[in-house]
Amino acid sequence: MQVTSEILERAIEQLTKLPGTGRKSAQRIAMHLLKQSDDYVFKLAQALIDLKESVDHCSICHNISDQNPCSICSSVKRHTGIICVVEDPKDVYTIEKTGEFNGRYHVLGGTISPLDNIGPDDIRIKELMDRVHDEEEEVNEIILALNPDSEGEATSYYINKLLKHHEIDVTRIAYGIPMGTELEYIDEATLSRAFSSRNSF
Amino acid sequence: MQVTSEILERAIEQLTKLPGTGRKSAQRIAMHLLKQSDDYVFKLAQALIDLKESVDHCSICHNISDQNPCSICSSVKRHTGIICVVEDPKDVYTIEKTGEFNGRYHVLGGTISPLDNIGPDDIRIKELMDRVHDEEEEVNEIILALNPDSEGEATSYYINKLLKHHEIDVTRIAYGIPMGTELEYIDEATLSRAFSSRNSF
Repeated sequence: MQVTSEILERAIEQLTKLPGTGRKSAQRIAMHLLKQSDDYVFKLAQALIDLKESVDHCSICHNISDQNPCSICSSVKRHTGIICVVEDPKDVYTIEKTGEFNGRYHVLGGTISPLDNIGPDDIRIKELMDRVHDEEEEVNEIILALNPDSEGEATSYYINKLLKHHEIDVTRIAYGIPMGTELEYIDEATLSRAFSSRNSF
Repeated sequence: MQVTSEILERAIEQLTKLPGTGRKSAQRIAMHLLKQSDDYVFKLAQALIDLKESVDHCSICHNISDQNPCSICSSVKRHTGIICVVEDPKDVYTIEKTGEFNGRYHVLGGTISPLDNIGPDDIRIKELMDRVHDEEEEVNEIILALNPDSEGEATSYYINKLLKHHEIDVTRIAYGIPMGTELEYIDEATLSRAFSSRNSF
């Protein structure tokens, strides 16, 4: 096989390392970029460089942020007493989109997963407890919003146990039937959970 | 909604413009890049910039190339008399991978498509005819390797008509049953084509 452009080849090779991008997709992206304006490609490249060079973390909630503390932790409009515990920065984004939550966050940076050798000390549980003990934060509610998989469950149980002897409400977002679906298509685990978590109407 | 990182937001926005990349994928890519080494991200950004700044086209076959003429057109190991006509540079790559073809290429840069207002003058058919008339190239066979859709067919017919009164073999790659499949799963159009193109055994 004869490759006519080493530069193209190199771009494809780098793109192939992106998540969810195989050789074909990488090739399609490279071909697409070749047809785009210089301006767009330079902007994209610069945005990626900025991402690595300028993005920081908030020292309070550990979310990705341009400033420290982040705009949520430093906002006077947000309740300081309620902390929503999430696994990942992208969960903050997802929850913020609903506009339903007006407290602060705590990004664990993972979940307890013995199979992957991730214990409680490998994620930011200690930092969460520090915030609970911090009198300035006056934490009175911890909302657990972890993914409903076994690692998320285990982490939720662990945090709940740690907080047992504190005067803090530990709540969890409701797991059940998603809106707009039909019962027929719901898996058994979700349906069982929906039954055991039923509310008075 | 409160965005904690404008830089992240900007990177996601730029990534969303890539083909086949929605908001969720762009977000996943950005989060992935945040976790990667500086080295990789800078290499990726540089590869994209190089792609725009340094990649050129071969003035003979119009394929993407770092040099002009490209390594295929300037190779003494390739037959000069046979030209394989393809729609797109990525088709060259696909055919080169097979190692089956040892001639040169001609990249049309599209196919005739009246619905999209693309006529014969909008793709490199004139350039192909110039090559046919060029005595140095001594073209004796044109292999049409366009996609088996209506635009590809129309373009093949058009080129074949143009070459009718030249002493050149015009051939077309075989369309039929792909290897390794079962007849049962083949669509009717392909099967009809496989019948009408049957060979003696």
